Amino acid sequence: MQPRVDFISLGVRSVEASRAFYVDGLGWPVHREVPGEVVFIQANHGLILSLWDAGQMQAEAGVDAPGTVPCITLSHNVGGTDDVDRVLAEAAAAGATITGEPVTQPWGGYTGYFADPDGFRWEVAYNPTWAVADDGAVTV
Amino acid sequence: MQPRVDFISLGVRSVEASRAFYVDGLGWPVHREVPGEVVFIQANHGLILSLWDAGQMQAEAGVDAPGTVPCITLSHNVGGTDDVDRVLAEAAAAGATITGEPVTQPWGGYTGYFADPDGFRWEVAYNPTWAVADDGAVTV
Repeated sequence: MQPRVDFISLGVRSVEASRAFYVDGLGWPVHREVPGEVVFIQANHGLILSLWDAGQMQAEAGVDAPGTVPCITLSHNVGGTDDVDRVLAEAAAAGATITGEPVTQPWGGYTGYFADPDGFRWEVAYNPTWAVADDGAVTV
Repeated sequence: MQPRVDFISLGVRSVEASRAFYVDGLGWPVHREVPGEVVFIQANHGLILSLWDAGQMQAEAGVDAPGTVPCITLSHNVGGTDDVDRVLAEAAAAGATITGEPVTQPWGGYTGYFADPDGFRWEVAYNPTWAVADDGAVTV
């Protein structure tokens, strides 16, 4: 597993309130959005800051009770479904807990989740609409 | 305030346990470390993943009670102390709560903290040993 973070997703109580702060207030650019569900902000080259409905995040990332782990995920994107399986196995071998076995998501991707020793969630994701180069550079 | 994240700091219960997972287990490279306090991992170009003692983080980032906000900070580095003051003022004007007025830190930097609408902490930092170009690129 390469040392890369491609997405930072903040689980927010209100996507509208969070959007009002980051987009309307700070003037940050929206890359794509689904109103009321998620706003993707294009941050540094290759890094996306995602403002994501906390309930949806908790359901997808395998959080049993809100508040028990931070409402944030760090995403690591790879180039294919086999890579998702491989990286999750590497993380498990290093001591991670698999909190979400890889599945095909409604949006077409293939993702799984693991928790590090403190419970911080990492998403390992293959997104067929993204390109991941051999050196790990991600092109949206 | 530019849409940039330069540091991701995870507040961890045990720096040793977290290091054993990320460095020994996953093989990620240590950029610099203070044993038992913090480990800096060089991630994507320009991005540092920091494994930081949760107690130290909570003290510095203005968390009153552990568990009330996620033990994670997103850092935004700028080129001078005036820039720290300016960016914090921009964030406040956009609706942020200033949780830590800017101060000179023991390590020589000048940093302040704000909370977004959900309480996620952003550190705005000037580090005299880092270079920040006009386009926001950070060189460690």
